[in-house]
Amino acid sequence: MSQSSGRVRVAVDAMGGDFAPGEIVKGAAAAARAGEAEVVLVGREDLVIEELQKQGVPLELMRLVNAADVIREGEPPAVAIRQKRQSSIVVGVKLIKSGEVDAFVSAGSSGAVAAAAATYLGMIPGMERPTIGGGFSSFAPNIVVMDLGANVDCKPHQLVSFAVAGTVYARTVYGIENPTVGVLSTGSEEGKGNDLVKEAFPLLKNSGLNFIGNVEGNDILTGKANVIVCDGFVGNVVLKFYESIGDRAKVWLMGKYPRVKGLVGYMFDRVLPIKKLSYEGEEEGSGILWGVDGVVRIAHGACKAEHIHHGINAARKAVKADIVGSLKREIALLKQQGKLQ
Amino acid sequence: MSQSSGRVRVAVDAMGGDFAPGEIVKGAAAAARAGEAEVVLVGREDLVIEELQKQGVPLELMRLVNAADVIREGEPPAVAIRQKRQSSIVVGVKLIKSGEVDAFVSAGSSGAVAAAAATYLGMIPGMERPTIGGGFSSFAPNIVVMDLGANVDCKPHQLVSFAVAGTVYARTVYGIENPTVGVLSTGSEEGKGNDLVKEAFPLLKNSGLNFIGNVEGNDILTGKANVIVCDGFVGNVVLKFYESIGDRAKVWLMGKYPRVKGLVGYMFDRVLPIKKLSYEGEEEGSGILWGVDGVVRIAHGACKAEHIHHGINAARKAVKADIVGSLKREIALLKQQGKLQ
Repeated sequence: MSQSSGRVRVAVDAMGGDFAPGEIVKGAAAAARAGEAEVVLVGREDLVIEELQKQGVPLELMRLVNAADVIREGEPPAVAIRQKRQSSIVVGVKLIKSGEVDAFVSAGSSGAVAAAAATYLGMIPGMERPTIGGGFSSFAPNIVVMDLGANVDCKPHQLVSFAVAGTVYARTVYGIENPTVGVLSTGSEEGKGNDLVKEAFPLLKNSGLNFIGNVEGNDILTGKANVIVCDGFVGNVVLKFYESIGDRAKVWLMGKYPRVKGLVGYMFDRVLPIKKLSYEGEEEGSGILWGVDGVVRIAHGACKAEHIHHGINAARKAVKADIVGSLKREIALLKQQGKLQ
Repeated sequence: MSQSSGRVRVAVDAMGGDFAPGEIVKGAAAAARAGEAEVVLVGREDLVIEELQKQGVPLELMRLVNAADVIREGEPPAVAIRQKRQSSIVVGVKLIKSGEVDAFVSAGSSGAVAAAAATYLGMIPGMERPTIGGGFSSFAPNIVVMDLGANVDCKPHQLVSFAVAGTVYARTVYGIENPTVGVLSTGSEEGKGNDLVKEAFPLLKNSGLNFIGNVEGNDILTGKANVIVCDGFVGNVVLKFYESIGDRAKVWLMGKYPRVKGLVGYMFDRVLPIKKLSYEGEEEGSGILWGVDGVVRIAHGACKAEHIHHGINAARKAVKADIVGSLKREIALLKQQGKLQ
């Protein structure tokens, strides 16, 4: 952490996301103004300065670091991060490595951010691949689901590393001393589920974590387990499905009660947490890339200024809570006990 | 179909489900009274007669077929159907085979029903394993998702057979002439997803079906594709998650607005389709076991009388729509065109 000011320093990828640089710069400026962190904007200097001037943001509010290149959504991550060393993603990640910042937030290509983080920061021993995990918020305040899409095809032992990361998450972010861990399955009894779950079950049982067995789809929001592990395919499908429910309910009700559709819309926007039905809308720290040796946060490509603002705040909290150190210690302990390969 | 009366004859497993035989008998009697089908109750005659008398249902309302044995939830299906040939499940399925009924409805062990149907009715050529598929109803009136839990580990070509069955479903149940088919994935672009999806993609593309590519979790309820195929693991998780959302929203809102929680509860029960957030609550024919050579419907273990009533009606509609014949013709056509292995 910055020794001079005591404040956490967060680099932000000005070029990443569907609404970059406009919304990113706006969100970064809001966070800088709120004084939550020292904000460092990373991107093409000419474009970033133009945007700052357009928005009337004083240049001295944030530090700028030039990155001449941009990695586009859809570029093969491994190739892109090798060929575009001057991209905002690679430059931003390297700022952590060099100690110039404490965290990096990007709404750019998730694959490229994960690859750059794994390559330039390295993995924490015991974590094989970067993992995206987070809370579902709203109806389920104290749960974390891992993985949410970074690893679509998983090996059984990877689910154990997700469980470890999730446990650290629930402890550091939610303050739960001994979080319960469940594996997402198609039935509550041991032996139910697909091959992955059946093979991961005994590993989780012997992990030393607070494993309570299988949980089902209808258990996700009930808090039956604080940490729910699954492969990134099902995690991603469930998360996106969850995010869509509020809007679908609104559309359905407005169609059913056309005479009061204004009221229905109002109720949904003000009373029911439609907008909150997204982990990105929350500032609790979801979207952190777990397993890499540094605090990196990945935001939705479609995120707006408020999400970037939240993201910077979430990154600050993650640095303060020392999530990376906690994960290292937890994994080292499990390895020492012979419970993790 | 019964030649004498012209009415569809539906056998009902009186012993299957958490609330058997009480709720099953009640639902069967309601369907029989409504005259929707000729209902045949299958189960332990002494218990069924006792229940009918308790409920004041005249014995002549339905035909009874004795089945001395019961397969319990959790028994290994393959073993159970071999050892318990006098069970209500085996006897009920065999009634279709012998031509005594046109369809069978059971809320008993899904695995045992599927195994008995595959064994005693046989599979339709081109369908490798029985498949459970159905609509999500409510917010998404014209979609069908397959598989919902019968096949948790799938091969790519199985997703094609799900797509064929789903296409027949959407045509016969929803009346959609040329249903669109999507494969559930983690991104919209070709090449996104896990190994299963990537391998199934070209097969679906060449299947001759109306394949539109990948759909994501947030597309499920929008009707972007009429037929959504996925392995039974993710299908089952998403379905159960969907079914739980309404109750979670209610709990959340009642906690947030304790002073008006009575109103909140009333609104959810009367205005928002919480109870309908379950394919089992609908009579559209969901829960049909596809791929076996006969009309078999599987109901939730926790189903009540109204669900059994719906199930009987759905089975009747499936017989009338000749879903089995349609599926046979569709598969034969695809095979003839060399599009299905």
